[in-house]
Order: sequence, then structure tokens, then C-alpha cells
Amino acid sequence: MNYHAKEMNPQKIGLLEGFWGNRNQLLSEVIIPYQWNTLNNRTEGVPLSHAVENFQIAAKEMEGKPEGTIFQDSDVAKWIEAAAYSLMHHPNSDLEKNIDELVRLIGKSQHSNGYVNTFFTAKGIEQRWSDLEMGHEMYCAGHLIEASVAYYQATGKRQLMDIMVLYANLIAEEFGPEEQKLHSYDGHPEIELALYRLSEATGNTRYMDLADYFMNIRGSIKKDPTGVTDKEGMVQKSRWLKSDYFLDDKPIREMTEVSGHAVRAMYLYAGVADQYRRTGDQKLWKALTNLWDNLEQKRIYITGGIGSQSLGERFTIDYDLPPDRGYTETCASIGVVFWAWRMSLIDPDSRYADMVEKEIYNGALSGISLDGKAYFYVNPLEVNPRVAAFRQDMEHVLTHRVGWYDCACCPTNIARLMGSIGKYIYSSTDTSVCIHQYISSETEIYLEGEPISLHQETKYPWNEEIQISLKMEHQKRFGLMLRKPVWCDEWTLEINGIACNSYRLEKGFIHVDRIWTDGDTVQLKLEMAVKLFQADSRAQDYCGKAVLMRGPLVYCMEEFDNGPQLQELLIDPESNFELEEEIVQSIPSVHILLDGYRQTIRTNSLYGPMKKTERTKVRLKAIPYFQWGNRAKDQEMRVWIRTI
Amino acid sequence: MNYHAKEMNPQKIGLLEGFWGNRNQLLSEVIIPYQWNTLNNRTEGVPLSHAVENFQIAAKEMEGKPEGTIFQDSDVAKWIEAAAYSLMHHPNSDLEKNIDELVRLIGKSQHSNGYVNTFFTAKGIEQRWSDLEMGHEMYCAGHLIEASVAYYQATGKRQLMDIMVLYANLIAEEFGPEEQKLHSYDGHPEIELALYRLSEATGNTRYMDLADYFMNIRGSIKKDPTGVTDKEGMVQKSRWLKSDYFLDDKPIREMTEVSGHAVRAMYLYAGVADQYRRTGDQKLWKALTNLWDNLEQKRIYITGGIGSQSLGERFTIDYDLPPDRGYTETCASIGVVFWAWRMSLIDPDSRYADMVEKEIYNGALSGISLDGKAYFYVNPLEVNPRVAAFRQDMEHVLTHRVGWYDCACCPTNIARLMGSIGKYIYSSTDTSVCIHQYISSETEIYLEGEPISLHQETKYPWNEEIQISLKMEHQKRFGLMLRKPVWCDEWTLEINGIACNSYRLEKGFIHVDRIWTDGDTVQLKLEMAVKLFQADSRAQDYCGKAVLMRGPLVYCMEEFDNGPQLQELLIDPESNFELEEEIVQSIPSVHILLDGYRQTIRTNSLYGPMKKTERTKVRLKAIPYFQWGNRAKDQEMRVWIRTI
Repeated sequence: MNYHAKEMNPQKIGLLEGFWGNRNQLLSEVIIPYQWNTLNNRTEGVPLSHAVENFQIAAKEMEGKPEGTIFQDSDVAKWIEAAAYSLMHHPNSDLEKNIDELVRLIGKSQHSNGYVNTFFTAKGIEQRWSDLEMGHEMYCAGHLIEASVAYYQATGKRQLMDIMVLYANLIAEEFGPEEQKLHSYDGHPEIELALYRLSEATGNTRYMDLADYFMNIRGSIKKDPTGVTDKEGMVQKSRWLKSDYFLDDKPIREMTEVSGHAVRAMYLYAGVADQYRRTGDQKLWKALTNLWDNLEQKRIYITGGIGSQSLGERFTIDYDLPPDRGYTETCASIGVVFWAWRMSLIDPDSRYADMVEKEIYNGALSGISLDGKAYFYVNPLEVNPRVAAFRQDMEHVLTHRVGWYDCACCPTNIARLMGSIGKYIYSSTDTSVCIHQYISSETEIYLEGEPISLHQETKYPWNEEIQISLKMEHQKRFGLMLRKPVWCDEWTLEINGIACNSYRLEKGFIHVDRIWTDGDTVQLKLEMAVKLFQADSRAQDYCGKAVLMRGPLVYCMEEFDNGPQLQELLIDPESNFELEEEIVQSIPSVHILLDGYRQTIRTNSLYGPMKKTERTKVRLKAIPYFQWGNRAKDQEMRVWIRTI
Repeated sequence: MNYHAKEMNPQKIGLLEGFWGNRNQLLSEVIIPYQWNTLNNRTEGVPLSHAVENFQIAAKEMEGKPEGTIFQDSDVAKWIEAAAYSLMHHPNSDLEKNIDELVRLIGKSQHSNGYVNTFFTAKGIEQRWSDLEMGHEMYCAGHLIEASVAYYQATGKRQLMDIMVLYANLIAEEFGPEEQKLHSYDGHPEIELALYRLSEATGNTRYMDLADYFMNIRGSIKKDPTGVTDKEGMVQKSRWLKSDYFLDDKPIREMTEVSGHAVRAMYLYAGVADQYRRTGDQKLWKALTNLWDNLEQKRIYITGGIGSQSLGERFTIDYDLPPDRGYTETCASIGVVFWAWRMSLIDPDSRYADMVEKEIYNGALSGISLDGKAYFYVNPLEVNPRVAAFRQDMEHVLTHRVGWYDCACCPTNIARLMGSIGKYIYSSTDTSVCIHQYISSETEIYLEGEPISLHQETKYPWNEEIQISLKMEHQKRFGLMLRKPVWCDEWTLEINGIACNSYRLEKGFIHVDRIWTDGDTVQLKLEMAVKLFQADSRAQDYCGKAVLMRGPLVYCMEEFDNGPQLQELLIDPESNFELEEEIVQSIPSVHILLDGYRQTIRTNSLYGPMKKTERTKVRLKAIPYFQWGNRAKDQEMRVWIRTI
């Protein structure tokens, strides 16, 4: 691969009225304040976070011991990052004041050697790096670094980044290939991609070097699972905390199957993609594409959920994708976005942006309620609340979103994804502009030093029309790459109102290479037919079943619309599909009405001789998967429905 | 209910050549010796039992500490019981010598107060009854009592029964309603039904009284789950070891749903049935029938397996019957037989004998290999070995039988069930003889003091013909009750070669009330058509699927015959079914050939737009469920197959 695209400066991408513009308004007005209150223990009826308090304690402005998970600091970091994105387009001096105060606390909690971590500060920082398997120190560091870069980009304020530079310098002094240094890495990848961001923000390649070191020694030096400290019942799980859980059973360059803890895996692969972009090491690219193929072809749910098993929150084996017991953590879906996006900068293949799309409209997005104040950690594709409430092997499955979690990694993570959604819309090379996502927005892209203004308007994902207009001072020849989504079979393209035939379709992108003029408009129409999707029959849970999709959206059926016992329902593939526009919690939505059957079987006993059972014709209703559980709590939901 | 039938003396029931005659020959020649060797740590490649050694230690004839589970004594007891049944019809002086030596050891291990238990002997018997939740002392006592009664019945030797009478006396002195006594009961029911057997064998009602006491206080006095000792990781499970696990969340008379630990539940309900037979307390009968209805209508697998969840080895909720993750322990299926049999003595309804039949040909029988030397603890209805080997929520599922277990309750239990199978064939009242099971056998039944000889010959369950002949000195009027199995729709009855129309069909029994004469013959033909069974659609795992049955046998499909990816298979309900006689490991068997399809779906990616997928017509082969896993190890198997 020698295509290397550039990311946009997030500051330069403004969201307009539309699906994501509205979501980002909610982020600024509701989600950021809600999460701030929660991190400060001010939300009633949810588990106390203590995350801000922990920094007050570490800064010696409060008595006590840090509480919460050992990686509680990262919640603060991710919130700062989300808030920074929000500030880029929704200035808010009160919010900025809160963050500055937080930054002051973080700074005050920093040790003279640069170390920052509330938990290990309480333990005594001579114990730092003593539990690299599960201590999450560099994971927290990575999130603080990412936050510091985002806040710097949003406000130009360097304080937090300066703090994190000192901390990163400490890490670089204490870890590395030199004999006197520690030869290890964090059990939870995150620092790697953060160090890349820090290098880009500071121009100092030292941090990338360190990231590469961490990635390169993985597999030659392994984590020792017997050294795992026991917090939250980890001892009982120890036989699962094996090397492959930590993604260090083999060197990265030899990896072929996505495995281990799903979030760890995604963050690591994202870091590896960064390393490949820097080094061009073809062994890394080979590993990345093998891993990607394995993910896409064998180990991902149709919603974009990943991690088929609760214990270890992890990947299992090919085609093992139980709809009711998967882990499908919101954070893991977010991690897929990070990795996919980096892949799309390396390889101009739409499969990566298709994956980003899958996540942001389905697997990741289902992790937050429409009102922004309730979250799913686990995003199942099928719930039967009575069963999930009883069965121990579904203990991890909640059938309603909750306001916060004891381990609350997901809420702030989805917030920062929402805040940074603009980043995933465009990329560019010297001679091309690539549109990955169809999201109402405007931006300015520099091609060989010349600015092109790009304005995109669309009601996507509800509506199939996308209107793009270009502004520029001088005519300019460049390639415009428009993603043809994988779900779309028919589409039309007009330029300045005239059907365009001079394009080429390559690796899922429509390439229009021409001399563009100020005022040019592009109209893309992506036919959004309702379609039934099926699975490879090696995925044993899905034989005889199908999923309704429209555009990028996976649909599901809820008890709310279709009554209980959803397993009795059958879709008629010959059905006409009727679209119904509906406002759900002030969000416009498109629901699908279709023909199907309900097959209710009553036998004399629990089992009885098979009879020609009458099917009752019913009109079924499906809603977008990401909206499930918003209208009622603890009801049945199914993505995969039997077909006649 | 005021029908009270009598059991037969097991000594009086001889099995003839046929399905169970052959199985019992294997029991005597292979299984009993194999298990004896294993209990003596002489079988290679299996977990060491230590069970006999523990008695040598307790008898002070060996140094050391007892090893194995805390209820290891019960393995010895169940083996003695199985061996006793074997001796009734297969005299074997070497075997008897081994048992006598064991009895001597048990006697020598008995404390002066009567107490017998190898584990608590090592702990110091002042600690007896200190862990009634999980200590299993009275559970072991119960099994030893049952063994002692069986050995007495088989050989007339009273030594072991005398030992157990002393022990039972101790228990009766230490537990009871009197103020100075302990007011409690064992966490694992078993002593209750054993005490009933002891009362019957000794004529002393004191033991029944104690059993009634134990059952009656359940629910008013509860086990304290926080007091559970931690052996084998029980602490992590403690939140599951709640009152309902122990079947003491409410008084027995108020129970309506089968719940808790499945084996505990079955043994308790069997004891309750004994109590009802004695007392006629209608509240008990109401509870028993409510519980039975709940079991039969909502909480049992089609194979007779019970217990839908591994953790707690327990019942869950109505209709929750996952085919791949159930616990379906062999011992629990055996427990169903104990309960069902007692119900059939109370209520002349064939549903109970139908249930016994379901278990002895399916759910319980699958627990032992055809060669008698390998066992299943868990009997799933669907296995995918790759998935079961990886997934933590299938950790309990083995995909091949093994020679022994660390917790080896099942092997000796299935042995004693096999040895006592004759017991479940006949019962009688003063004026009727009831044939519950069609098993080649002969017996002598006394009606009002007069002996009737009954000779039954059949190739059941493979063949539909049953030939019964009667011998008696004087003509006698009595009712002959022949079970019409629930799966049988068409049948013919001939008496002395002439079609019989003078019968009445009542509660599943064909009642023939007439004056019988010496030499009378009865020929019953129960049409054994291959049938497809379906489930109530509230059982969510079975919608769109069916099970092949022929006669009492549940059939399954194995990878061995049908190739892998069994989820791709579809049965054509319109298929003709062809029977194929085959000898599997020297056991004659009938397999079913039928038409079906294999629907293999390959999409571009893991998921793709639904297409009319070609189905390939295939000839499918099904084998009796109990035979699964005998021809190859670790292959796929499915009971429930999709239908077109």
C-alpha cells in the first residue's frame, strides 16, 4: 500500500443540521453536563463514580482513598476529550472553566518525576508498573494524552498537554530497549495510539518510537497471568487471563486472527496501523489485513458488535456469534471505528468506511439512549428479559440502559466518539478528496496548499440523497472519491444537475477525476431499499433467519411493537416493505412495516407430534437497532428473525 | 387419590433376553467390575476415586486422609446397591466376597455412637452436622441405607443393614422436633426416601417418622447460604446457593414449580411422594401434582433431561431449555425416574410411566456408553465440539464420554438404575396387575394371596410387538392394565389370538378386566411409526425445528453420519422414513433414514443480501439419542433439526 491519506483537523469540520448535527447538539447540551455531574457523584440513583474526587485526593485537596475501578482516571480523560470536541463547535466558558479546574487538579496530582495516576499515587508510586497486566496505568495515561491533545486542538491551551508530555517523558525514560530500562508494556493497549497522537501534536517522534517499542516487543515478552492482582473477582477468571487475552501470545507480525479481549485488540490494531503508516513495514500490513479479513469475514456481529463471550470480554472462535450471549461491548465497537479509520487512511478501500458506518449507526450507537443519559455496556442482538434476568450465563446482559456503571468505560467513550464524528467524514491526499461518510457538514480541505470548501447536506441515514457543493478560488483538477456503501446496489450521480458517467468504481469508491470549479455541485443518490440479509451458514445461530436492513441501519423487532414471544415471528421475504416516518423522543426515524406470520404452537404437553400449524398473518414492525429499548424497559428484542 | 399400588419384590422380577436383559448382562460382566476397579484406584487414565481407600482410612487400616468430594462415600454405596441388584439374578461369589469385605470396612469405620462417614471421621465427628448445607452427611447415609436394603434383599445378609440401622438411630436421636434435638435437615435430600426404604425393610416406622420430620420442617427452617463452606469454588457461586437451590425457600406444601438443584429436587419430591403414600395428606398431593405439571409442561427437555443451567446444576424458568447449555445431569434424569415411579404407584395415570420410559431410553441412558465404561455427566441436546471446547458458558459440556469424573455421582447411579430396571415394569393392587414398561421379563404377582406368573416377551423399543402370557393355578378375575404409551396412536390388542374389544382406556392405560385362565396370552402391538415432534412455541430455542422419534426413542443426527455443520440440515416432514437395522457395538439398533436438505450459504462477507439459496437434497440418518458419541469422539450432534 502506498496510498496515504491525511486526516482533517477536527476543528475544521463543522456539523450541520442532520442526524449527527443533532446528536452533537445533544452531546453539548445534555450528555457532557450529565456525565460531568456523574463523574462528580452528583447524579442520583447511579453507582458513584468518584473519578473527579480521586484526582482531588491525589492532589491532596481532599482526604481519602481513591475509589472505583483501577482505571477510573480514564473516565475523566475521556470526558475531557469529549468535552474538547464539543467546545470546538459549541463554545461554553463554564465548561471550559470546569475543565481548566480539572487540569489544575491533574497537574497538582502529578509527581515530580511526571507520574500521574490516582490509584498508584495512593498505593505509593514506587509500586508503579508493578501490575502491568491489569493495573491500566498506561491505559489511563493514553486516555489523558488523547484528552490533552484534543483540548489543545480545541482551545489552544497547552497545560494538560504539558503535563502529559512530562508523564510521557517519564514513561520513555523507564521503558525501552536499553538494558537499564523496563522491558514491558501495558496489558491494555491504548498508550500506543495516544503516543502517536502526542507525536503528531508536538512534532516530537520520541513518543512514536516508544509506541513502536511497546508494539514490537509484544509476543517476545509475555504477560504472566499468574501475576494478576485480584480486584473484582479476577482470580476466578485467571485461567482465562492467558497470553492471548492480552494479545501477546505471539508477535504482532505473526497474528492472523482477531482474538483476546476485544477492546484491547482493537486499540492495539489501531496502534499497529499507526505504526504501519509511519514505517511502511509490509509485515505489519500483512498482519493488519489478515486480522481485518478475519474480523470482517468470521468474527463480527451484523451490528458491528464484537466479542462473543462475557468471560474475558473477548473474541472466541470463527463463526461463534450467539445473538443473546455475546459481549458486544460498546467500547469494542468504538475500537473498531478507531482501527477501521486508520485502515482507510492506508488503503482506499471502502470496506473500512463501511465498517465505521456499521458501528456509528448500529453497534456503537446502541450504547447510548436517545436522550443521552442511559447506556448499554453490552449490546445483544436478542433479548428475552425473563431469561436474561435468571440465567447466570446471561448475567452480563442488561435489558435496559442504565445511567452509569461501576465500570463505566463505555459512556464517556461513546461521548468522545460522538464528539469526534466529524473526523470520520473526510480525508485527502495531495490530489484527491475522499468522502467516507455522508453526514451534513462543511469543511475546508487544502489540496497542494489551496483551500477547497466542501458543503455536504443530507438526511442520511433516513434519506438517500446527498448534496455536495464545492467552493474554491481557482479551478482545480482533483479526484473526488465518494464511497459507494456495500449495502447499496443502485445509485445515481449528478454533477451540476447532469448525470455523470465519467467516473470509475474502484474498491468501493466512485472516483470522479476532473477539473472542479467554484460552485460545482454533486448529487449522489444511494438507493436505500429495505433488504433482508442472511449469514454464512457456518454461523450456526443464524440459519433460517434474516435481518432487515435499510441503508446502513440494522433493524430489529421489539415486543413493544410486535407483542411478546418474538421467536414465533416469521418474515415473509416476498413482503412489500412500507416505510413509516416517526418521531421517537424528538428524533425523526424511519420504521419498517412488513408482512409476516406468527406461528404459535401449543401442544398437549411441552412437546407433541408435529402438525401443520396455522400461521397467522401479521403486520410486523421493525425499528433501527440503535433505538432499541428506548420506549419501554425490559422487553423482548430480536435482530435475527426467522423467515418462511 | 386412593389408588395405592404395590411395588414388586425386585428379586421376583427376572429379565429375559432383550434390550434390558442384555444391558443387565453387561452390568454384571463389565460395568460392576469396571466400577469396582475404579473405586479402588485401579483404572488407568481416569481421575482417582479413593472411595474405597477412604473407608480403609476411616477403619484405621490405612494411613492418610480421605480424598475426593465430600460425598465420595456415596459412590461406594451406589456401587454396592448396583452390585446387589446384579447379584439377584447373576450370582457371583467373588463379587459377594468383595462386598462383604467392604461391609466389614464400613462396620469397622462406624463410631460407637453409630456414625459413619469417612470425611467427618477425619475431621473429627464432633464436627458432624456442622455443614448441613453442603456436607452431604445424610446424603451419604441415605445411599448407604439404600445399599444396605438392596444387599439384604439380594443376599439375605443383614450386616450392612444392621450398621445402617445403628446410624439411622443416631440420626433419629439427634434430629427431631423435641427441644433438645437439632432442628434441621440435610441440604441434599436423599435420606428421606432412604429412611422410607429402611422402614419398609425393617418394619420400624421410626425412620419414616424422621423422614417426614425432615420434609415437614423444610421451608420453615431454612439453610443459611452464607454458612456454606468453600470446597471446589463454592464461594464464587454463593449468590446462587440461595434457599431455592436447597429447595427450602418455602414449605413443600406450598411449592408449585420445580426449582433449585435438579437432583436435590427430584430426590426430595420422591420422598414427598413416599410421605403422601403413607399419610394421604392432600396438601402434599396437591403440591406433587402442581410440581409434576410444571415439570412435564414447562421445564423438561424432550430427552427427559432436566436442569437448564450449569451454575447450581439447576432449574431456571419456564420454557428456558437451551439445547446446548443445559445441565441435564444423568443423576437428575435418574431422579425423575424415582419420583415418577412413586407417582405411578399413587395415581394410575400412564404419564408417570411414560416419563420413566422417556428417561430410561433417552436422558438417563445417554449417560453411559454402549460398552459401559464411559459416562456423560451432562447430556446436551446439541453439541458443536469446537464451540463447546472454547466457550466458558459451555465449560460443563463434554463432547465425549469419559471413564470417570472427579465428582463421579453419575456412573454408579446409572449402574444402580440399570440393575433395578425390573422394578419399574410391574405393580399391582389387590385386584389388578399393571404393566408399566414393556421389557422382556418374568415375574410372579400375588393377588389376594394367589400367585400369577407373568411372562413378557418383546423386542421393545425396536419392535412394536409385546407378547404376554399368564400362568395361574385357578381362574381369577382381575384387571390387567397395559400402558398405552403417549407416543402411540394406533395399537391392537389380542387375547388368545382374538382381537379384544372389551377394554376401557383410562388415563393412558388399557384396562382389561376379565376372568383370566392359566395359559392366557395377550398380544399388544404398539404402532411405532417414525414421528416428528415439535415444541410449544414458548420454548424459544425450538421454533422451526423438530425432533425425530420412534416409539419411546428420541433420535439425533450426528456428524458421523451426516457430515459437519448440522445446523445447515433441514428435515422434509413429508419424507418417507426408512428403518435400518444396524448392530452398534454389538447392540442391535434401528436407525432412521429420511429425506432432507442441506442449505449451505456463502455470502461475500459474513453477511450478505438474502438470495434464494439452493438446497441440496440429501439423505439424512438419525440414530437413537442414547447412542450418541459412541462411534466417534468430539463430533457434532443435534436432536432438534430445522424443518422445511
